Amino acid sequence: MEYRIEKDTMGEVKVPADKYWGAQTERSRNNFKIGPSASMPKEIIEGFAYLKKAAAYANCDLGALSTEKRDAIAAVCEEILAGKLADEFPLVIWQTGSGTQSNMNVNEVIANRAQVLAGFKIGEGEQLIKANDDVNKSQSSNDTFPTGMHIACYKAAVETTIPGVEKLRDTLEAKAKEFMNVVKIGRTHLMDATPLTLGQEISGYVAQLNYGIKALKNTLSHLSEVALGGTAVGTGLNTPAGYDLKVAEYIAKFTGHPFVTAPNKFEALASHDAIVESHGALKQLAVSLNKIANDVRMLASGPRSGIGEIIIPENEPGSSIMPGKVNPTQCEALTMVCAQVIGNDVAIAVGGMQGHYELNVFKPVMAANFLQSARLIGDACLSFEEHCASGIEPNLKRIKELVDNSLMLVTALNTKIGYYKSAEIAQTAHKNGTTLKEEAVRLGYVSAEDFDAWVKPEDMVGSLK
Amino acid sequence: MEYRIEKDTMGEVKVPADKYWGAQTERSRNNFKIGPSASMPKEIIEGFAYLKKAAAYANCDLGALSTEKRDAIAAVCEEILAGKLADEFPLVIWQTGSGTQSNMNVNEVIANRAQVLAGFKIGEGEQLIKANDDVNKSQSSNDTFPTGMHIACYKAAVETTIPGVEKLRDTLEAKAKEFMNVVKIGRTHLMDATPLTLGQEISGYVAQLNYGIKALKNTLSHLSEVALGGTAVGTGLNTPAGYDLKVAEYIAKFTGHPFVTAPNKFEALASHDAIVESHGALKQLAVSLNKIANDVRMLASGPRSGIGEIIIPENEPGSSIMPGKVNPTQCEALTMVCAQVIGNDVAIAVGGMQGHYELNVFKPVMAANFLQSARLIGDACLSFEEHCASGIEPNLKRIKELVDNSLMLVTALNTKIGYYKSAEIAQTAHKNGTTLKEEAVRLGYVSAEDFDAWVKPEDMVGSLK
Amino acid sequence: MEYRIEKDTMGEVKVPADKYWGAQTERSRNNFKIGPSASMPKEIIEGFAYLKKAAAYANCDLGALSTEKRDAIAAVCEEILAGKLADEFPLVIWQTGSGTQSNMNVNEVIANRAQVLAGFKIGEGEQLIKANDDVNKSQSSNDTFPTGMHIACYKAAVETTIPGVEKLRDTLEAKAKEFMNVVKIGRTHLMDATPLTLGQEISGYVAQLNYGIKALKNTLSHLSEVALGGTAVGTGLNTPAGYDLKVAEYIAKFTGHPFVTAPNKFEALASHDAIVESHGALKQLAVSLNKIANDVRMLASGPRSGIGEIIIPENEPGSSIMPGKVNPTQCEALTMVCAQVIGNDVAIAVGGMQGHYELNVFKPVMAANFLQSARLIGDACLSFEEHCASGIEPNLKRIKELVDNSLMLVTALNTKIGYYKSAEIAQTAHKNGTTLKEEAVRLGYVSAEDFDAWVKPEDMVGSLK
Amino acid sequence: MEYRIEKDTMGEVKVPADKYWGAQTERSRNNFKIGPSASMPKEIIEGFAYLKKAAAYANCDLGALSTEKRDAIAAVCEEILAGKLADEFPLVIWQTGSGTQSNMNVNEVIANRAQVLAGFKIGEGEQLIKANDDVNKSQSSNDTFPTGMHIACYKAAVETTIPGVEKLRDTLEAKAKEFMNVVKIGRTHLMDATPLTLGQEISGYVAQLNYGIKALKNTLSHLSEVALGGTAVGTGLNTPAGYDLKVAEYIAKFTGHPFVTAPNKFEALASHDAIVESHGALKQLAVSLNKIANDVRMLASGPRSGIGEIIIPENEPGSSIMPGKVNPTQCEALTMVCAQVIGNDVAIAVGGMQGHYELNVFKPVMAANFLQSARLIGDACLSFEEHCASGIEPNLKRIKELVDNSLMLVTALNTKIGYYKSAEIAQTAHKNGTTLKEEAVRLGYVSAEDFDAWVKPEDMVGSLK
Repeated sequence: MEYRIEKDTMGEVKVPADKYWGAQTERSRNNFKIGPSASMPKEIIEGFAYLKKAAAYANCDLGALSTEKRDAIAAVCEEILAGKLADEFPLVIWQTGSGTQSNMNVNEVIANRAQVLAGFKIGEGEQLIKANDDVNKSQSSNDTFPTGMHIACYKAAVETTIPGVEKLRDTLEAKAKEFMNVVKIGRTHLMDATPLTLGQEISGYVAQLNYGIKALKNTLSHLSEVALGGTAVGTGLNTPAGYDLKVAEYIAKFTGHPFVTAPNKFEALASHDAIVESHGALKQLAVSLNKIANDVRMLASGPRSGIGEIIIPENEPGSSIMPGKVNPTQCEALTMVCAQVIGNDVAIAVGGMQGHYELNVFKPVMAANFLQSARLIGDACLSFEEHCASGIEPNLKRIKELVDNSLMLVTALNTKIGYYKSAEIAQTAHKNGTTLKEEAVRLGYVSAEDFDAWVKPEDMVGSLK
Repeated sequence: MEYRIEKDTMGEVKVPADKYWGAQTERSRNNFKIGPSASMPKEIIEGFAYLKKAAAYANCDLGALSTEKRDAIAAVCEEILAGKLADEFPLVIWQTGSGTQSNMNVNEVIANRAQVLAGFKIGEGEQLIKANDDVNKSQSSNDTFPTGMHIACYKAAVETTIPGVEKLRDTLEAKAKEFMNVVKIGRTHLMDATPLTLGQEISGYVAQLNYGIKALKNTLSHLSEVALGGTAVGTGLNTPAGYDLKVAEYIAKFTGHPFVTAPNKFEALASHDAIVESHGALKQLAVSLNKIANDVRMLASGPRSGIGEIIIPENEPGSSIMPGKVNPTQCEALTMVCAQVIGNDVAIAVGGMQGHYELNVFKPVMAANFLQSARLIGDACLSFEEHCASGIEPNLKRIKELVDNSLMLVTALNTKIGYYKSAEIAQTAHKNGTTLKEEAVRLGYVSAEDFDAWVKPEDMVGSLK
Repeated sequence: MEYRIEKDTMGEVKVPADKYWGAQTERSRNNFKIGPSASMPKEIIEGFAYLKKAAAYANCDLGALSTEKRDAIAAVCEEILAGKLADEFPLVIWQTGSGTQSNMNVNEVIANRAQVLAGFKIGEGEQLIKANDDVNKSQSSNDTFPTGMHIACYKAAVETTIPGVEKLRDTLEAKAKEFMNVVKIGRTHLMDATPLTLGQEISGYVAQLNYGIKALKNTLSHLSEVALGGTAVGTGLNTPAGYDLKVAEYIAKFTGHPFVTAPNKFEALASHDAIVESHGALKQLAVSLNKIANDVRMLASGPRSGIGEIIIPENEPGSSIMPGKVNPTQCEALTMVCAQVIGNDVAIAVGGMQGHYELNVFKPVMAANFLQSARLIGDACLSFEEHCASGIEPNLKRIKELVDNSLMLVTALNTKIGYYKSAEIAQTAHKNGTTLKEEAVRLGYVSAEDFDAWVKPEDMVGSLK
Repeated sequence: MEYRIEKDTMGEVKVPADKYWGAQTERSRNNFKIGPSASMPKEIIEGFAYLKKAAAYANCDLGALSTEKRDAIAAVCEEILAGKLADEFPLVIWQTGSGTQSNMNVNEVIANRAQVLAGFKIGEGEQLIKANDDVNKSQSSNDTFPTGMHIACYKAAVETTIPGVEKLRDTLEAKAKEFMNVVKIGRTHLMDATPLTLGQEISGYVAQLNYGIKALKNTLSHLSEVALGGTAVGTGLNTPAGYDLKVAEYIAKFTGHPFVTAPNKFEALASHDAIVESHGALKQLAVSLNKIANDVRMLASGPRSGIGEIIIPENEPGSSIMPGKVNPTQCEALTMVCAQVIGNDVAIAVGGMQGHYELNVFKPVMAANFLQSARLIGDACLSFEEHCASGIEPNLKRIKELVDNSLMLVTALNTKIGYYKSAEIAQTAHKNGTTLKEEAVRLGYVSAEDFDAWVKPEDMVGSLK
């Protein structure tokens, strides 16, 4: 491979000749061979592209950067956002915990690419744009990386997670309405209980997702705060007056999301509670989705030896050995995602709790876990919605058979003959393998007519709305 | 020990003669010898006392219970709330996951105690109040236990957690103001960085706690919803019309907190995402508090071989072997609490994700973990506030010594002579063990006058508010 | 309340007159009002009683303590082990993270109680036994507390956890043998699969528990190492030569367990990886037990609308509203325990990872979580064994009905007619609601005679041992 | 893009013309668009290559497969292992939880590639090797995927994790020996304590890693068991006699690792406690490494306002804004890895606990988390060793300065003048800012000569070995 020589404050470094990155990126590449290369999430790099452009504009507005430099920086940021420089960010999550090296990676790529866009070769002629002094002007890794994190995480939550969950929620809501009158047996403790309708059952899932979405939205205000303007330790050293407000406005403008400057920059550098907070809501969604997906596969279990009250789409052969087998694979993918998100929540807590003094140095691991969770939930909800939930149908024959045989319909008699006699009827029918009505009449507690009048599953399900 | 005979639908059971509980409580006591006895949190029992009274009132208002029965039930509930029947609730967390046995424990105690208050012995005469038919009227364990959980958890969050955190926040806020002009060295990556003030540093802690309080408050709306009225599976079977709204009103009235009926009872029985959600905020607070307490002990470390920038109260001898040693024990208690809360969050997630069909049967373990976390955070914040935070004082001599020697003051030169020359000055001073000024002048980059004018720690800390 | 005055190196403290504890205990009681009082596990106090006695013997053997003092100390230790001084240990988990205050609590109680046993009142006459200089001789909190932890945790694992799990394992093993020929349908993905026997199914649970027991035993060697002899920082300062070996021998002798001195005392004070390691095995058991208990309740679900292949004991009425309902309550208690243990594992990891320099100050929280898990698993296994597993019976009628109808028996045809034709048979039977045989013959792939010869559930279950 | 038509039991599917995969892979690709594509770890695919080859050999030996087919299958497996077919495995972790689709992906690629190696085009001529009937012969996804997992995870633990940790352990062991006589201050509770040597301090880290390695090795026996031969539900349906033993032998032979057949196949399919168990040891290593890395960065903190007792290599410029700053970046990468591993442990527990009946369907997520942890720990230890640990040097001047000033040297006087007088000396020196000796003499407790004779740091560190 061909190399060129780049320098930083520590000396010279050989860098692949065809890459835009510079000395510090190359040092990091060599010093942190941990896990697959280029694992730093691309969403973070995009977040940096937004913020570098915003910083250039804010610096220019405040007289700290020339219009030419601003435009040169912005042009490269646009290329990054367009995905044109995807191979230029080779660094891993497992680098310095401030993300300094990824900040420098972006700074170096922007500086060198700007030189090329200006018609020079890398390293040729005077450096038009300097990585530290221009691209990083009025910035520190300590405020840029958390800003990039917030941009990336906010976007993922709002653009991927919420739409995915909402799509699933909408489909389940439609199913709840469609099946609102399908009376079925209820189950508590996995055991037969009093009836409800399939629509009511599904309405519980809808409520869970609505709470989850609301919980996530509640956290977005904290996540919308950006640290930029705090520089090294939160004091804003080396920034022009008004810079923090202005740069946040530009970020909001460029991303289309309501980002604002963090009111306390010390908090914004030294802790990442906003990530902890928002991921708490992702974890709540995972808890909800696990319950929902697990219910769906239990309700659909069978075809002949399970519960079998609902039918879900058959998407693919289920077994490499058992011919004709079909499995609730979307439920499985979704519940695996839930397990991952619940684990990620702990990784984030462990990182979040260990900030020291003016800086938390678990930034990349926190961001990477957040982004994985946010995307997985969004994607998995869409997949589950399209390939499973939208095709849920009741197995009406099976549902009727089970509800009609249920011993728990006896509960309707509580208010007529009391809990104890009702229990005796149910226990006797269970022991004898008979029906409630047979035993109710035989024991002399209820007449056949009263039984028919009082014990109607469809009257036991309350209001249907 | 003397016994009396109690009955339930399964037959006779011997119960200690001097206890109010009945057959089902005794069965549970015998069947679940898991861990220390009586581990079911007393806050849950109190929650039941509120809801049983509220249910009696609602039932009475709606014509389902006589005034006499209502008052008899309410009288015992008052005794429970007054702590008079503390020995009557011997059951453990590790029972049925619906908490049915604790619900029946409360039902049985109320029924038998009412009999005694009416002048009879237990079991003597006609049972005035029946455990199932009266005390439990219009209720199921499946809606009472989650209601009791929400009452208990809401109260703990609002009456213990938030006041504790707010007290600490207020004290830290006062300290932040008091020390707003104490310029000190900043530290990032644990390494010397540019200066800030001690007040700024502490203001970051204040911001963390404010976000945590806000996050917790955001969750209270979900937690204020009570399941009562859903009965067995959420349909409200065997409840009079309008009961759910009315019973929630009474709970709100009796507790003084804004409880409302859950709009979707299926969700309220089958999942406990409200607990997951609110505990997510407790976990966030734990993450914040761990950072704060850890910073405090690092800043106070020494007395001669640590950081030593702040002084914290000496509350007790610190060592059984090292004479004169004093330790940051309040920080340690608080960080241990944080570890517990972060673990509890996982226990709650694991319980919350495993609901089946119409019921989640991890209710007691979820509630117990929540209540422990809520109390520990509240108590530990008060303790930390009183015995540590309120006594934080700056060690001004040490602070000045460190800031004056710092090499990172060189950052102020960035905007004057650029990042590279500044780095050279710092590196040289580091290598030679000299001061920045000496090297800046020696290298010929800055005059002594300019250095003094440009490198002023007090000018590097931004606005102080 | 009456008080007496006690002193420590910081001055005077008022202590309840009727208590043996001294100044440092009282300071801790006042300074750490966090959670319920006296939460420090009694197993830890017992561990201290063993080690204080062992230290007295070792000190005496090595000429550092008189025989009189040794015996005086040992006498009080015996009283503690006999439970006679249970009210003398009022401190909480949430104190100093080294457990210094509980160490001093024990030291003070032993010193004052020895004075009383010698015929004096507390504080009267010359102090025969000094808390620091005698009881704590050759010790530091930093080596006593981890020693007490290891004694307590080792004993809990060996005396409570393992016997409980083994009892359950034995019962399941007997059930596996008993039901080894009961052919039933298998289920994968919750869907009907090829048959196996009930005994085979249960044998999987047995294997899980055997692996778990083995895993836990693998960790005991690390847990059997005691820190005593390391004193303040691991160097053994102020201990007589040979003390560490001797004191470990005495601990082994007094407890009857093979404790040894930790080969590296620095590790033994600064980290508690032995707790992390052994609790990892407890977590593994929790993972296994959750699977087992969940399977049992699913297999027992019904009575009419579930799986219903096994019958479990009916131990108590299951519902306060649904008469006659019986629930898998032991499964629920056990799975709640599993959730707790999985959460505790995180609390322990979070504590374990945060040691600093020569000391980990999360000792009490780590020990408390371990002891809770160890006991809960042991107790819950005994409870589950006695009240559930030992009564498991197959529902032979239901089992036969389900296996006979299964479409997955078609798998037996794979090796005769290939996967694709087999799939066609199964799919057609599923679609038409017919039997495999009908469709196999109708499609012309298999003759009726061959079908009967080839598709025999009892031939599809492999070897039964 | 060009397509060809592939079929499975559900019908036709369009597949990219230039890919070897078939219908079921393509269905999965379309049905599971969750997260980045091709996320199924390549180590799993390699595990499959080993087992498919082993199965072909075993089948052939037992007369179930021709030599030609065996060799054709084996040839493609070799290509996979050589990395030649890397683009042929496009599936994601988030698919069916049994990994059926990845099993079929491998089956399909082997079948089609074999056809091409035989000189045909895909789909041309008679299919020489059938995906289900030949490649998957005597197999099910349910036993192949866990076998692939175990092969991959065992190899990762043994080939990556352990060597990485051992390398670091060896380096730290050498450092411990090298610095065994460097007397320094100890710190407990972050506060000054009695002295020890730097070598002793580091020896604690070495001990931690040795315990961790041992713990991991303890788990390998369980992990070395392979499920192959259990087929669909563990009974071994459709396998020739002796197959399970033989196939395990071939796996052992081909991989060079001591794999054996699982004695209980029901456990091996329905639970993945071996993964839980081994990952528990990885989590323990993470806990240890976090402590070590955190200590290193605290000890190296400064350069002027920290602890500064050790010097670590300067690998890269540390700050984009603060010139000359150098940070403990390797410590940060390593502690981030620890946070990830601790989170992964929870994801694995959550997956492991949710097996149902004969199958655990969290296989891919469990394997993926394990493999990530195993690699990250191994890689991060190597990186930390090379770029940090190997360069650790004591800052002798600083170390001496701190130890000489320490007040905790007073502990040496305990055995001479008692704990109380010693405390008074330390407290007075602390208050007056004087030395211990000055106050000891002034208070009249010790003569200057005795002080010098008794208080020698180098005599307070115990035996040095």
